[in-house]
Amino acid sequence: MSHFTRPLLSGEAESQTATLLQGCLVDLIDLALQMKQAHWNVVGPHFQPIHEKLDEVVETAREASDEVAERIVAIGVTADGRAATLVESSRLDAFPAGFHDGPTIVTACSDRLSKTCVGLREAIAPLGDLDPISEDLLIGITAELEKHLWMLQAQEK
Amino acid sequence: MSHFTRPLLSGEAESQTATLLQGCLVDLIDLALQMKQAHWNVVGPHFQPIHEKLDEVVETAREASDEVAERIVAIGVTADGRAATLVESSRLDAFPAGFHDGPTIVTACSDRLSKTCVGLREAIAPLGDLDPISEDLLIGITAELEKHLWMLQAQEK
Amino acid sequence: MSHFTRPLLSGEAESQTATLLQGCLVDLIDLALQMKQAHWNVVGPHFQPIHEKLDEVVETAREASDEVAERIVAIGVTADGRAATLVESSRLDAFPAGFHDGPTIVTACSDRLSKTCVGLREAIAPLGDLDPISEDLLIGITAELEKHLWMLQAQEK
Amino acid sequence: MSHFTRPLLSGEAESQTATLLQGCLVDLIDLALQMKQAHWNVVGPHFQPIHEKLDEVVETAREASDEVAERIVAIGVTADGRAATLVESSRLDAFPAGFHDGPTIVTACSDRLSKTCVGLREAIAPLGDLDPISEDLLIGITAELEKHLWMLQAQEK
Amino acid sequence: MSHFTRPLLSGEAESQTATLLQGCLVDLIDLALQMKQAHWNVVGPHFQPIHEKLDEVVETAREASDEVAERIVAIGVTADGRAATLVESSRLDAFPAGFHDGPTIVTACSDRLSKTCVGLREAIAPLGDLDPISEDLLIGITAELEKHLWMLQAQEK
Amino acid sequence: MSHFTRPLLSGEAESQTATLLQGCLVDLIDLALQMKQAHWNVVGPHFQPIHEKLDEVVETAREASDEVAERIVAIGVTADGRAATLVESSRLDAFPAGFHDGPTIVTACSDRLSKTCVGLREAIAPLGDLDPISEDLLIGITAELEKHLWMLQAQEK
Amino acid sequence: MSHFTRPLLSGEAESQTATLLQGCLVDLIDLALQMKQAHWNVVGPHFQPIHEKLDEVVETAREASDEVAERIVAIGVTADGRAATLVESSRLDAFPAGFHDGPTIVTACSDRLSKTCVGLREAIAPLGDLDPISEDLLIGITAELEKHLWMLQAQEK
Amino acid sequence: MSHFTRPLLSGEAESQTATLLQGCLVDLIDLALQMKQAHWNVVGPHFQPIHEKLDEVVETAREASDEVAERIVAIGVTADGRAATLVESSRLDAFPAGFHDGPTIVTACSDRLSKTCVGLREAIAPLGDLDPISEDLLIGITAELEKHLWMLQAQEK
Amino acid sequence: MSHFTRPLLSGEAESQTATLLQGCLVDLIDLALQMKQAHWNVVGPHFQPIHEKLDEVVETAREASDEVAERIVAIGVTADGRAATLVESSRLDAFPAGFHDGPTIVTACSDRLSKTCVGLREAIAPLGDLDPISEDLLIGITAELEKHLWMLQAQEK
Amino acid sequence: MSHFTRPLLSGEAESQTATLLQGCLVDLIDLALQMKQAHWNVVGPHFQPIHEKLDEVVETAREASDEVAERIVAIGVTADGRAATLVESSRLDAFPAGFHDGPTIVTACSDRLSKTCVGLREAIAPLGDLDPISEDLLIGITAELEKHLWMLQAQEK
Amino acid sequence: MSHFTRPLLSGEAESQTATLLQGCLVDLIDLALQMKQAHWNVVGPHFQPIHEKLDEVVETAREASDEVAERIVAIGVTADGRAATLVESSRLDAFPAGFHDGPTIVTACSDRLSKTCVGLREAIAPLGDLDPISEDLLIGITAELEKHLWMLQAQEK
Amino acid sequence: MSHFTRPLLSGEAESQTATLLQGCLVDLIDLALQMKQAHWNVVGPHFQPIHEKLDEVVETAREASDEVAERIVAIGVTADGRAATLVESSRLDAFPAGFHDGPTIVTACSDRLSKTCVGLREAIAPLGDLDPISEDLLIGITAELEKHLWMLQAQEK
Repeated sequence: MSHFTRPLLSGEAESQTATLLQGCLVDLIDLALQMKQAHWNVVGPHFQPIHEKLDEVVETAREASDEVAERIVAIGVTADGRAATLVESSRLDAFPAGFHDGPTIVTACSDRLSKTCVGLREAIAPLGDLDPISEDLLIGITAELEKHLWMLQAQEK
Repeated sequence: MSHFTRPLLSGEAESQTATLLQGCLVDLIDLALQMKQAHWNVVGPHFQPIHEKLDEVVETAREASDEVAERIVAIGVTADGRAATLVESSRLDAFPAGFHDGPTIVTACSDRLSKTCVGLREAIAPLGDLDPISEDLLIGITAELEKHLWMLQAQEK
Repeated sequence: MSHFTRPLLSGEAESQTATLLQGCLVDLIDLALQMKQAHWNVVGPHFQPIHEKLDEVVETAREASDEVAERIVAIGVTADGRAATLVESSRLDAFPAGFHDGPTIVTACSDRLSKTCVGLREAIAPLGDLDPISEDLLIGITAELEKHLWMLQAQEK
Repeated sequence: MSHFTRPLLSGEAESQTATLLQGCLVDLIDLALQMKQAHWNVVGPHFQPIHEKLDEVVETAREASDEVAERIVAIGVTADGRAATLVESSRLDAFPAGFHDGPTIVTACSDRLSKTCVGLREAIAPLGDLDPISEDLLIGITAELEKHLWMLQAQEK
Repeated sequence: MSHFTRPLLSGEAESQTATLLQGCLVDLIDLALQMKQAHWNVVGPHFQPIHEKLDEVVETAREASDEVAERIVAIGVTADGRAATLVESSRLDAFPAGFHDGPTIVTACSDRLSKTCVGLREAIAPLGDLDPISEDLLIGITAELEKHLWMLQAQEK
Repeated sequence: MSHFTRPLLSGEAESQTATLLQGCLVDLIDLALQMKQAHWNVVGPHFQPIHEKLDEVVETAREASDEVAERIVAIGVTADGRAATLVESSRLDAFPAGFHDGPTIVTACSDRLSKTCVGLREAIAPLGDLDPISEDLLIGITAELEKHLWMLQAQEK
Repeated sequence: MSHFTRPLLSGEAESQTATLLQGCLVDLIDLALQMKQAHWNVVGPHFQPIHEKLDEVVETAREASDEVAERIVAIGVTADGRAATLVESSRLDAFPAGFHDGPTIVTACSDRLSKTCVGLREAIAPLGDLDPISEDLLIGITAELEKHLWMLQAQEK
Repeated sequence: MSHFTRPLLSGEAESQTATLLQGCLVDLIDLALQMKQAHWNVVGPHFQPIHEKLDEVVETAREASDEVAERIVAIGVTADGRAATLVESSRLDAFPAGFHDGPTIVTACSDRLSKTCVGLREAIAPLGDLDPISEDLLIGITAELEKHLWMLQAQEK
Repeated sequence: MSHFTRPLLSGEAESQTATLLQGCLVDLIDLALQMKQAHWNVVGPHFQPIHEKLDEVVETAREASDEVAERIVAIGVTADGRAATLVESSRLDAFPAGFHDGPTIVTACSDRLSKTCVGLREAIAPLGDLDPISEDLLIGITAELEKHLWMLQAQEK
Repeated sequence: MSHFTRPLLSGEAESQTATLLQGCLVDLIDLALQMKQAHWNVVGPHFQPIHEKLDEVVETAREASDEVAERIVAIGVTADGRAATLVESSRLDAFPAGFHDGPTIVTACSDRLSKTCVGLREAIAPLGDLDPISEDLLIGITAELEKHLWMLQAQEK
Repeated sequence: MSHFTRPLLSGEAESQTATLLQGCLVDLIDLALQMKQAHWNVVGPHFQPIHEKLDEVVETAREASDEVAERIVAIGVTADGRAATLVESSRLDAFPAGFHDGPTIVTACSDRLSKTCVGLREAIAPLGDLDPISEDLLIGITAELEKHLWMLQAQEK
Repeated sequence: MSHFTRPLLSGEAESQTATLLQGCLVDLIDLALQMKQAHWNVVGPHFQPIHEKLDEVVETAREASDEVAERIVAIGVTADGRAATLVESSRLDAFPAGFHDGPTIVTACSDRLSKTCVGLREAIAPLGDLDPISEDLLIGITAELEKHLWMLQAQEK
């Protein structure tokens, strides 16, 4: 049930939409944390362009998570982006600890970016009927992240 | 032992410095996540200025965590800012779930900001001998966060 | 019948699309006028953040009305945003005259923003078949206005 | 009687000043709506420079109406810029509906700009004694609008 | 078959999407070249606003072609925007050589802009099922180009 | 007697103008100091918007005092904005020491802003005959300060 | 008689206003040419600050002349800023040819700036009755030029 | 003979270079005055784009005259840009007084721009041997002015 | 024969200059298309810096082609930058289709950049006598492209 | 005793730190007032660079005083920057009244800047133990002011 | 002995501080020259990111040397950054002549950056007692250079 | 012999061009170092404008040296800007050590600027035949430096 007195969606659509968005929110925040982790711990001859590229991905993921969380709240449901929630429900594999060379980082980051995009696409389909505003938001985010994915996996041999 | 062949600090100073900085790194990243959580879930008559003020704290905490992590790596040690690490070692209490009104948010955020500043001050003292560059970095961060703390707790009755 | 010799849509789709857009155009211009009215006449302890927030809503509403009007004309139909047209066909209640305190203003503005969003959603559904370009435009406008709605109604007790 | 406890003007001067400013406020808001109407519905070979020029007039009229309304409120009287008020008390002729070619638009807009300037000049004279601050504000607005008027009517044959 | 190991689409959707996008890519690049050709070779009393307007169309077409090409590559297929490919597969009529006066240029450019928009709309429909990200991209491009089309054909007598 | 060899005003007008401007200069500098005092020492639930609003008043008062002082010197008379001069001749009540809650601050600041505006208006009248350039300068300053006054006193219950 | 069909002023006021403005226009354009002449031909130890200061005066004089000329035209009279007109009717003494040291330049420029300001003040008085918009324009210009005059003549011994 | 103790050119080259540059300086300043004259006094249906275009020419001519004058002084010779000098030695025909319609203005301005370019080209040839720095400066100026000339004369029937 | 009534060059110089510039125009447009083709289709570990560098070359080539085309038109001859013209007369080898790794792309692009520069240098020599303005334009373009060439071929083993 | 419930420092350190900062706050505000006084009342051949330089000192002093005052309040103590407090406790000599030539101004300002820096250095030493955040703040301010001091006293003979 | 009459430090501290700063000044200027040398002469597949990164180091080193030199002069001692002084007293090894591939450049630059940081750290320790302002300046510089060092040596295998 | 496989110049022209450019490179880097030396060590009443002007010369000299060095490398020859090379081959006299008053600094700097310009002009003449791209580069640099030279030597008595 919406927290507000002027609900945007009917009760059923509201809870299903919120659940789909919350799943993506967790992935996006985790993606931002993991790409920062990679940004700091990459080493080797390709350090510079990878280090810089990953910060662009972080920027996209942070803005996307903020927009998704604010959409969840706008429809009257609480958003949850706390660390413990990330550990419990993120669909991304944990990032390996320590320093890594460029190719290892590129592959690990591509895998996680790809996983985030798959999650977004799975939410887009049902949102077309539930809430076109939320559907449109996720399409915009996916377009940006898939462009980053291309640029990262283009660097694999 | 430093990952790099031109270590900035002797072995002993290096590991102690890295440990102190890593403790603050975890608090700062957790602070950023919690302030965003509050930014999204605040409700009630004072919504607008609290909502905006918290985003400034997030901005400070994010930039600070990036600088601290890059300092850790610069002295040759891996930095760890992954979600599971936050859950294990953050010194901040977990943020309560759900929507909250303004006064509750102000107090909860002031408590966590204060806790982060206490952690930073505890690291500043020993860093004076270990590494003045790191000491100076944390002093700058503390100054900004204590200014935010004043503005937040000035709003309590 | 389109004013131009290279019509974008077939005759039927053209007139239905124009009618739907014209209905939203009127609401959006009226919303801008009413939010300015509130921006000027709010008084009381919460004056400052409400006064500023409402100007952001005005900005969104003005840009949205300009884009909707130019879309109507682009498909070859005249757009009508004159004062008398607003009085006749706006779906928003008239704004009460005189000075009002903060809570009264917040509720009055939330009601009118909510009404505008309902009107936009009612136009989005049929536009999906008639003209995806117009549908996409209204989805983007609704996303922004529903975010403003959240921020306004979050301020109600 | 001023809404505030620190009135800027004596009671008599206050109500006369407010009445004069309110008359101009209505004309300026109506002018902005009408110039937008013209901006959207002009057609023909001179479309481009007219379309752009009119948006500059809209920008001036909007800023002017905001400053005038805020002046009315600053002296303690409510400002009224609602659509129904425009229809009742604007001194500008209603704008003709539909598409129009360039020369027709230029003449129609010049007439309304001229009418607005005449109204402003009629208010400037008595304001010299009532409130020099308001007089100065209207002089500045008139200077800008008369410059736009020159540029528009210079385009007539 | 996608060039990358993490394909965004299934094989069938991938090749159909790529084919539809490649068709639009060629039109958009050709449109940019032709609008530049017109921008240089227009003469007569309306030279200035037409010369400037066409450069805005070029800007839109160039950015659009870059986004479409990068989308093709992102889904793992090579993009082809070479001169010989344009000559072979562009759906736009070749632009007439030499200097032309304003009305001739306006009509010639409107025809080509209209043709490009028709091609984009024909691709949007099937992309709704194949790849909503690409569909959304083309909708955004069409919206901008149809607005330019309005402004150009509004200048015809 | 003017310090310069090309005096702007006759001797009589010069000294009367300088005396009127010097009176306003002292008030404006004192106003800036007092609003900063309030900006620092406000506490309570409305801290944030009051804290920010007062800094805008400081900015206006500082720029205004600089322009007034430079006008005094331009007519060939020395300007005096030293602390002891403020204590001796400012027409504003001294600001109360210590921390204060929002409503107390709003009222104290509104009183002082109002006092400054009264002083400016008293100087504007005779300056109309003595020096229209100085009159115009003070009118512009009063307009800005009275707008700030509205926004502050609109916050009183 | 006004060139336009919607005259701003009555015939008598129109020609007197235009005559007064035209006199100032000529002085302002001549001032800009002479200050450039001085800007180029100054030599000696104070070269740098004088060279830079004079360019600020040129900037002010150019903008002022453009606004005055556009005001003349706005009221329906042709403006005349041609070289031969300057030679015939400028009230400034011709600038001496050749290189000059700093003190000579400062005095020569102060004399001409002072002369321009006297001319402006002589026009301001009658314009108060003829056209307050033009009066306000000249007051603003005089304020800026008298400030420059102060800064120049303050450099004389 | 150079005014400075470190002459850039031998005595012969110095005086010939200065003479060639001084001839262009006069034309460029006169061109700026005449284009402003046209900018103010144009009327008729093509007013807007001509009025704006001419201001770009003024901008180019002003910057060019400043660079040429500073080049003359840099080689140690006084520059002369005073009104009487313009009347005596400008190679441009005087601009006709009064208001003019668009086509008349375009032709009059094209003639004067063309004349200025011819003068520049005549100076470029001998400067190749005398002073390549001055030659390069005039080539850059001519390139810009000939581009403006194209855009102006392209508007003639 | 020049299209305009005020030709910049004599008939002979005009046609030779136009022919030389038209040859370079075609190469520059083709270069921009080919570098975009490479920008999209590069893959492998050096993807990121090559992808970005090539966009800078595209930017230079586009601006250069626009300046060359506008120079051709300024001297009164039509410019031709249509796709079919590129295929017929470009002096660059066609770019190979499909994806390519970094070293292949670097060599292919260096070859084409080098070819473009050779063409420009061959035009510069005769233009020295025909039209120094066009010569200077091509020198400036060559300087930029040869700098890009250095940076590209420095990446070859 | 701190005004807030989460004190940054122990009671003893808190009051000593506040006392040291308050002493510097008063000097910095007085410095800003005195440098403005000098900025307005300087005359003579070196007017321009001294007038400009002093405004930079004012800017530094104003920002510094704001940061110091906000630090005092952040540790829970009221800050006092009122005119009467300046007169009572500033450690700077009062500035002499009236106009002064350049060398006199430079010496008077250098003396006061030097006095302010001495006061800051005396506070820095004990703050090292009391509160490293405040120590760091004053070090930053002193660095800037000592740089200004160099530039001022470098101008003395 | 300080050149100025208001020395910042006692005589002993002054000369020791100046000596320590002068040593770092020489290293920093030499570092800037050497990094530029490397920036120009690097070749091979990693050219682009190394070329760009080194320019950022140059920028840091240049700004740092300027601040250190101005600090030396501010305490009243002459600064020496002439080429012969660099050759005599720089603690960095001379840079090898000629072109070098990426890995060689990265190692050579990392060695020199490391050497500069060691020199700075050796000066920081004694400056803590001599002059905390200078100590703080060098800490800030070291922090930036050590960050660059990390990014460079992270690129070594 | 060029380092690259696509040489810009024939072998003979290549080595002569590189030698001429290398001579200017050394002078320009030395000029930048010497002007910084002067910027730091100037004292006396004209300190401020000289201090600022010299930094502009440094800026020009640094950018010029970077462009010249990159041109040398672009034609395939290594550039040498190391400190020892400056000492060996700079054509400028060494700058005198210690503090100097304004007139001494102005003369010393003018001498070195003049020497640099003479060196540039001696290279420009032969480069006209060897490489017009390099010739044009040096002409542009000389133009800027000769303008600075004028402004400096204009300050001599």
